[in-house]
Amino acid sequence: MASVLLTFSLRHNLRLVASGCRYVSKTAPKTLSEFEYDAPSMKTPVPGPKSQELKKQLGEIQNVGAINFFCNYEESRGNYLVDADGNRMLDLYTQISSVPIGYNHPALMKAVTNPNNLSAFVNRPALGILPPENFPEKLIETLLSVAPSGMTRLQTMACGSCSNENAFKSMFIWYRVSVLACSYVCLFKQAPGCPDLSILSFMGGFHGRTLGCLATTHSKVIHKLDIPSLDWPIAPFPRLQYPLEEFARENSQEEARCLEEVEDLIVKWRQKGKPVAGVVVEPIQAEGGDNHASSDFFIKLRNIARKHGCAFHADEVQTGGGATGKFWAHEHWGTDDPADIVSFSKKMLSGGYYHTDELQPDKTQYPHLLSRARGQGTFCAIDARDDVTRDNLLLKTRDKGVLLGGCGERSIRFRPALVFKEHHAHQFLNIFNDVLAEYK
Amino acid sequence: MASVLLTFSLRHNLRLVASGCRYVSKTAPKTLSEFEYDAPSMKTPVPGPKSQELKKQLGEIQNVGAINFFCNYEESRGNYLVDADGNRMLDLYTQISSVPIGYNHPALMKAVTNPNNLSAFVNRPALGILPPENFPEKLIETLLSVAPSGMTRLQTMACGSCSNENAFKSMFIWYRVSVLACSYVCLFKQAPGCPDLSILSFMGGFHGRTLGCLATTHSKVIHKLDIPSLDWPIAPFPRLQYPLEEFARENSQEEARCLEEVEDLIVKWRQKGKPVAGVVVEPIQAEGGDNHASSDFFIKLRNIARKHGCAFHADEVQTGGGATGKFWAHEHWGTDDPADIVSFSKKMLSGGYYHTDELQPDKTQYPHLLSRARGQGTFCAIDARDDVTRDNLLLKTRDKGVLLGGCGERSIRFRPALVFKEHHAHQFLNIFNDVLAEYK
Repeated sequence: MASVLLTFSLRHNLRLVASGCRYVSKTAPKTLSEFEYDAPSMKTPVPGPKSQELKKQLGEIQNVGAINFFCNYEESRGNYLVDADGNRMLDLYTQISSVPIGYNHPALMKAVTNPNNLSAFVNRPALGILPPENFPEKLIETLLSVAPSGMTRLQTMACGSCSNENAFKSMFIWYRVSVLACSYVCLFKQAPGCPDLSILSFMGGFHGRTLGCLATTHSKVIHKLDIPSLDWPIAPFPRLQYPLEEFARENSQEEARCLEEVEDLIVKWRQKGKPVAGVVVEPIQAEGGDNHASSDFFIKLRNIARKHGCAFHADEVQTGGGATGKFWAHEHWGTDDPADIVSFSKKMLSGGYYHTDELQPDKTQYPHLLSRARGQGTFCAIDARDDVTRDNLLLKTRDKGVLLGGCGERSIRFRPALVFKEHHAHQFLNIFNDVLAEYK
Repeated sequence: MASVLLTFSLRHNLRLVASGCRYVSKTAPKTLSEFEYDAPSMKTPVPGPKSQELKKQLGEIQNVGAINFFCNYEESRGNYLVDADGNRMLDLYTQISSVPIGYNHPALMKAVTNPNNLSAFVNRPALGILPPENFPEKLIETLLSVAPSGMTRLQTMACGSCSNENAFKSMFIWYRVSVLACSYVCLFKQAPGCPDLSILSFMGGFHGRTLGCLATTHSKVIHKLDIPSLDWPIAPFPRLQYPLEEFARENSQEEARCLEEVEDLIVKWRQKGKPVAGVVVEPIQAEGGDNHASSDFFIKLRNIARKHGCAFHADEVQTGGGATGKFWAHEHWGTDDPADIVSFSKKMLSGGYYHTDELQPDKTQYPHLLSRARGQGTFCAIDARDDVTRDNLLLKTRDKGVLLGGCGERSIRFRPALVFKEHHAHQFLNIFNDVLAEYK
């Protein structure tokens, strides 16, 4: 409701400003709250003298070029941010959209001071190897209770950049598994290693500033200047004309143009040997200028990704957590299958990504057991780690109904008939996978 | 002292184990502590039934391939980690070296429950634009009080990977400024943009697993499999033979061989147009196998980096915070000028990097003012953003004692004499920088 009122007020206000009037909102009764202030209160110009002095001090330690002013977070309450000079401002920006329910919200204070949560703040578990015993339960109660449609799996991270970096990695790993599994020939034609895969992103997109994320970030030149990047495709993002109702035809054409370009880029990058493993997009481009597109655009984009075997990643770091009137912005698209992967941070006061079952990695990957995959046509081979393992794999695979041969010291050779079809490849891969799993 | 005892015990123990005896330490009197346990206590095999059940549950949500067992962090104390099945273990691994002073240390409990620190946990300031008013003071009291020698500047981060990613970015930006400033010709021959710069790392190194960090990580194949990488040089890290005193000559030759290779790689990558902006190294390679090198090796490495104009980055994410018997492992090198940049996380219960004044970016970068740098020999030009700015820059630079010309609509042309030397370039750059700074 609040967001509808805000949008309405902003639109209304824009028109009044245009005609030179000062708009006094009729829909702004004082919000009664025990802990919130009731109005802004300005005591000095901003930045005030104390902020200026602190900026000088901090300038001795780090780059302060982007600092607006210094804050008194203890005194800040709800929608009001108090600065170091005692100015109290109604905050419509909330730390670049990172404060979910206002400053020092009593519910958060209670959670943080709850003695049962204390050890989570004091200790620093390596979650991947030694998680706390309540970890599954906590994930189910919290982040999984708001999981996007179709997503049952969740990886937690500490910040938005790490969330996207690792989401990209999941897509790369998934893509390789997916490509490997889709054809027998592919399986043995692609050697393991660091493949030349890419992520398709959009002009105006912002996905973080670590090196992988930065290769998909195209909002401000200053973010990228002097930093090496990757040769990944960048598609145009629709530039809609407003009001939407007056430009329906033009906007539809604009979106079609961008989608066509996406498809062309996917084909082009595949042709130049850097296939697109995933497409990453914000449901609303935030840092790039609050650029919107229609639900139709996103659904078609997701379908293009699927058609070309690319994963589809909705970056909800800025849009997630309720800001758009739904918990996730992609819910506005009205589909049960919005994406393969959804990343989050900021308002979620945490970070990570949700993904579908298919993106679960580690299904056919046994680098400690297998190496040197090689082949031409159906004439393929792969090496086991030693002769004992090779012989064992041959026997166990045979016991499950697949005949393979050995060659050399520790190689497994594949010599199927020329009537070998994709479903035979799947039969083999499923059985071989079961055998390999016993070595884990 | 503890570390000396531990090393001694381990060495002694190795010899006794070799001869088949069980070593009973004479130097292990029970540590008296109010809050710590007095010995391990095992109740089930590990992982016990409860850990196994939890692993099944978590397996529905995320990849659990690396999980050892689940922990009861509330019950863990000091050096003892308690698992979900009530097993109490003496912890010599401490969450991959991330627990500085044991589990639930009273001093940390006190800091976390101090009401003055509460707002730091509840709110989530965007530190780069709206830092808390006590930020400079807190940085000075804490992280800066243990700054490495020669480093006055500090950037905080949330984790080790982000610390290294951003340290790399600082080196790239520094390198460009540094190359630009070192020769007038270079200044105008390199167009702004995303240059093909590289970071030199070592075989066996581990610097994190986001995409930039991963390009410098070479400890386990599984970390890199299926993820695209960057064409950056990788040097061999010395493989020392033990005991050191018996292999002094061989180890010295081994280190010399690696250093020679470093220098060759720097030259080679410069020749192929991907100059090395920085060299990153762990004082002790941890993830890669606890590989040590002599102080002499690191000092020579730092000098090679300096000689070739590369920044030198000591990654102390694992080694920092006291683990090596000094606060920073690089202190063992015995030099006042150990590195240009030192990153940290883990035991520091935070993350970030220290750096020298020279690595402070943002000194000669004015992409909003200048573009299209171009030139041949001394015949160079750069464009201002518009004609008014161009004319203004020409006048102001002249007022400070440098004559420049204009050409075209908004270009500045440089036509120095053929006796123009490096120190003249510095004179110009210093003055031009002052003029540009007024536009900030």
